[in-house]
Amino acid sequence: MFAAMGALGLAPTATAATPAFSAPSASDFHLTGRKAAKVVILGGGVAGLVSAYELGKAGYDCTILEPRSRTGGRNFTARAGTEQTDLFGNSQTARFSEGQYMNCGPARLAQWMVTLDYCRELGVPIEVFTNTNADAYIYNESSGMTPGNPVRYRTAKADTYGYVSELLAKATDKGALDQQLTAADQERLLAFLEDWGSIGAKADGFGYTGSSNRGFSTYPGAAGTPGTELAPVPDVSSVFASGVGRYFSFEFEFDQAMLMFQPVGGMDQIPRALTRAVGAQKVKLGCQATGITETGSGVEVSYTDAAGRSRAVTADYCIAAMPPHLLAKLPHNLGSAVQAGLASITPASASKIGLEYRSRWWETDHRIYGGITETDLDLTHIWHPSYGFHGERGVMIGYYNYDTDADRYGRMTPAQREARAVSLGERIYGSKYRTELASSFSQSWRFIPHLEGAWHNLPDNSPDAAVLKPLVEPAGRVLFAGDWLSYMDAWQHGAILSARKAVTALHSRALKS
Amino acid sequence: MFAAMGALGLAPTATAATPAFSAPSASDFHLTGRKAAKVVILGGGVAGLVSAYELGKAGYDCTILEPRSRTGGRNFTARAGTEQTDLFGNSQTARFSEGQYMNCGPARLAQWMVTLDYCRELGVPIEVFTNTNADAYIYNESSGMTPGNPVRYRTAKADTYGYVSELLAKATDKGALDQQLTAADQERLLAFLEDWGSIGAKADGFGYTGSSNRGFSTYPGAAGTPGTELAPVPDVSSVFASGVGRYFSFEFEFDQAMLMFQPVGGMDQIPRALTRAVGAQKVKLGCQATGITETGSGVEVSYTDAAGRSRAVTADYCIAAMPPHLLAKLPHNLGSAVQAGLASITPASASKIGLEYRSRWWETDHRIYGGITETDLDLTHIWHPSYGFHGERGVMIGYYNYDTDADRYGRMTPAQREARAVSLGERIYGSKYRTELASSFSQSWRFIPHLEGAWHNLPDNSPDAAVLKPLVEPAGRVLFAGDWLSYMDAWQHGAILSARKAVTALHSRALKS
Repeated sequence: MFAAMGALGLAPTATAATPAFSAPSASDFHLTGRKAAKVVILGGGVAGLVSAYELGKAGYDCTILEPRSRTGGRNFTARAGTEQTDLFGNSQTARFSEGQYMNCGPARLAQWMVTLDYCRELGVPIEVFTNTNADAYIYNESSGMTPGNPVRYRTAKADTYGYVSELLAKATDKGALDQQLTAADQERLLAFLEDWGSIGAKADGFGYTGSSNRGFSTYPGAAGTPGTELAPVPDVSSVFASGVGRYFSFEFEFDQAMLMFQPVGGMDQIPRALTRAVGAQKVKLGCQATGITETGSGVEVSYTDAAGRSRAVTADYCIAAMPPHLLAKLPHNLGSAVQAGLASITPASASKIGLEYRSRWWETDHRIYGGITETDLDLTHIWHPSYGFHGERGVMIGYYNYDTDADRYGRMTPAQREARAVSLGERIYGSKYRTELASSFSQSWRFIPHLEGAWHNLPDNSPDAAVLKPLVEPAGRVLFAGDWLSYMDAWQHGAILSARKAVTALHSRALKS
Repeated sequence: MFAAMGALGLAPTATAATPAFSAPSASDFHLTGRKAAKVVILGGGVAGLVSAYELGKAGYDCTILEPRSRTGGRNFTARAGTEQTDLFGNSQTARFSEGQYMNCGPARLAQWMVTLDYCRELGVPIEVFTNTNADAYIYNESSGMTPGNPVRYRTAKADTYGYVSELLAKATDKGALDQQLTAADQERLLAFLEDWGSIGAKADGFGYTGSSNRGFSTYPGAAGTPGTELAPVPDVSSVFASGVGRYFSFEFEFDQAMLMFQPVGGMDQIPRALTRAVGAQKVKLGCQATGITETGSGVEVSYTDAAGRSRAVTADYCIAAMPPHLLAKLPHNLGSAVQAGLASITPASASKIGLEYRSRWWETDHRIYGGITETDLDLTHIWHPSYGFHGERGVMIGYYNYDTDADRYGRMTPAQREARAVSLGERIYGSKYRTELASSFSQSWRFIPHLEGAWHNLPDNSPDAAVLKPLVEPAGRVLFAGDWLSYMDAWQHGAILSARKAVTALHSRALKS
């Protein structure tokens, strides 16, 4: 019956494909007699760095203007000594211990993402990012959970899947699905539900009465210690009222399903490696673009350098890989259609705090090694570190939230943010959440100079919206790149593929010009 | 409504408890005026090593007799140069590259397991063991899947959960569950199903028509590349007939749910660290016990040493931490009840092959970074390595099977095993499964000298079966320890807790004697 599985669509493609890409090569110029042109790139984030890196393979003379003191853009890792001042003038210096860090921006990579190919190519070692964990907690205060009483994922899932199985088995047995399913289908469905939901047999009314999947108050041990399953099992009404089930779909989303990965030592190992590959001398840090003029035969970019002096650079081409809403504020002569495209994009907010602890009490006291605790508090997510297991110290992400929550946290002082994060987290984890705290580092992307956003709201929610066409398929010598010009906004994968698209277009044009 | 969540049983214990244990301490003897006794331990597996390690904390003079040339027992890691000869005389030397290894025995640790506490205490670094992966494959040939057309977990799960949601939503909407659920319950259930199963709204009959969770033939990329979802979606009948759902409960079993862990560099880092902590001079390798005599005031153990000479050792106590079915063959004077207990246990079979490849084609071509592929072939499981991502080479576990399959593979020559593993794996992964192979190492535990089993079949499936009482609560100076005397047979957690139980009993008796 599955003889033609490929045709049925169950079969995977052997390779989870990214669009084909041929990096430009110096040999491409042999037939044309031309040579690689000069390119100025605005923004040393991932899109800008990848543009320079790929163009560099063909010998293009690239200059990156980056207003911050480091490359990477939102790919930003805070570790001991990292300084940052937000738009309100709050200045912070991370005081994490050696080896401890937090990824303030992107933090995880799915297996199919092209970002991993750059890790391989550039020799950036990777390790598992612990995106889900059966032993992490769910804490929904609005449905009645009380301080000190979160529920573990494994318990919530066993109960939810158990009752889903019981209800569907009962309905099937009652004949409610006779129109949808043959007798053979029903038999197979019931066999699946009995196993998957750990429910009783037909003789027991398919009842869900708990299972070892829920976890134990004392785990099975030596003879004499068979283990004590968590009990009693809440009724079906309580389980669905608890709202725990809303977190389960995340675990199999196409961009979030485990296994996920991270670079060893911090996400910024990627821009660091790209910067080394490009050549640090090609990156002008502290240089903020102040205007773009297309001259017909080239592009002139004016900028302010690290010393505050007005400067200008000319090139054959420009790749503008800056945040679009900041680009929209820059004087240029690229026309009103370009400006309309840029102005149609607005930034979105996200905010994180890293809390360094003097001990890894979540491992010793809670037996939680990595993973994410989900809450309905305004801190939204709490992340346990994916590295440094069993070490002396560790950095928890005390909140990771979005939108108005992120803006509200961003408007607090760092001390206020820490105080709120601790007071909320304490409800879930108890007193060590406060007493073991060593230091914190926090930021909200809306209020970080030169970035001013975590990701973007696109017109029609699409990079192919009509108003963006002048950016996607630029007519002149200025091309655009960034996650915002992709279907994977907020992901480096999107920034990289957008950069590759710009590189391909530029190179193709350069070969013909 | 969740005000009393703890009482309802949804709340976790803050600590996933293992039974309390106080390691013996030299200070325990101060009041008694006694001093630590001499102990002979039969078997340098995990139970034996932990016994010596914990007794050593109080100054007991321990000697371990281990018949193999290394400690660890079934905790056995094969790497370059590892030699092994099975009961049929098949001799193998692993030819893996530097840094490559396979764990032939235990390979994963759950967060709640006491084994992790020993990793922490002994300084054995750990990393994530990739026990599940949305991008790994399912390959059920008996339900019609054909070579080259496995299905990815993410696809199989999206379809299964999608149809479960559609069917349950339809039945609920039809009133089939009005006896079980209030209107409010039904509303919450439907909201859960719509999100979790990615199904349509009521107006669309709650139909499941696929979702991005299935995966893509081309993943979303830059503008112009929105991505192409895998299609078409198989019908409900095909999905349940495919048998893919049978693998999903594994992912939330109490001992298998992610996150799982492994020691960096091989599972044998645990026995190595224990052996160092105990003191290598206390471990007599190549020494096979040949008899146990309890003398009333002590124990005499006869053995054959590494040179084949008959020797004997006397001690105040003995901990027998050997496989029970081999212990049953040893002459002893411990009585018929002890012998009946030992003889009631039979060994179980498991078998693995490690296939070293010259390239990590599963990462580059299949975008699979770790995890387990499940099959209904006699190889059962295929494991992708959890370490060395993006490295030059890697070791796949080409089969991990049990029972008669393991015995059958074990009776083949190593070359025959490799040939069969490759011919089956090739059906799933294609030609590189054959062409990139560098070397292999394989074994079946039933046929490994001095162990002769992977785990055990216990009477009544319980270490507390009546016939085992003389082993669990021994009357004399010989105590017993091993995973087989626990509710976690086959797990180091069980071996360790059994050892702790024996240590506690021995120390308590020594203090009183």
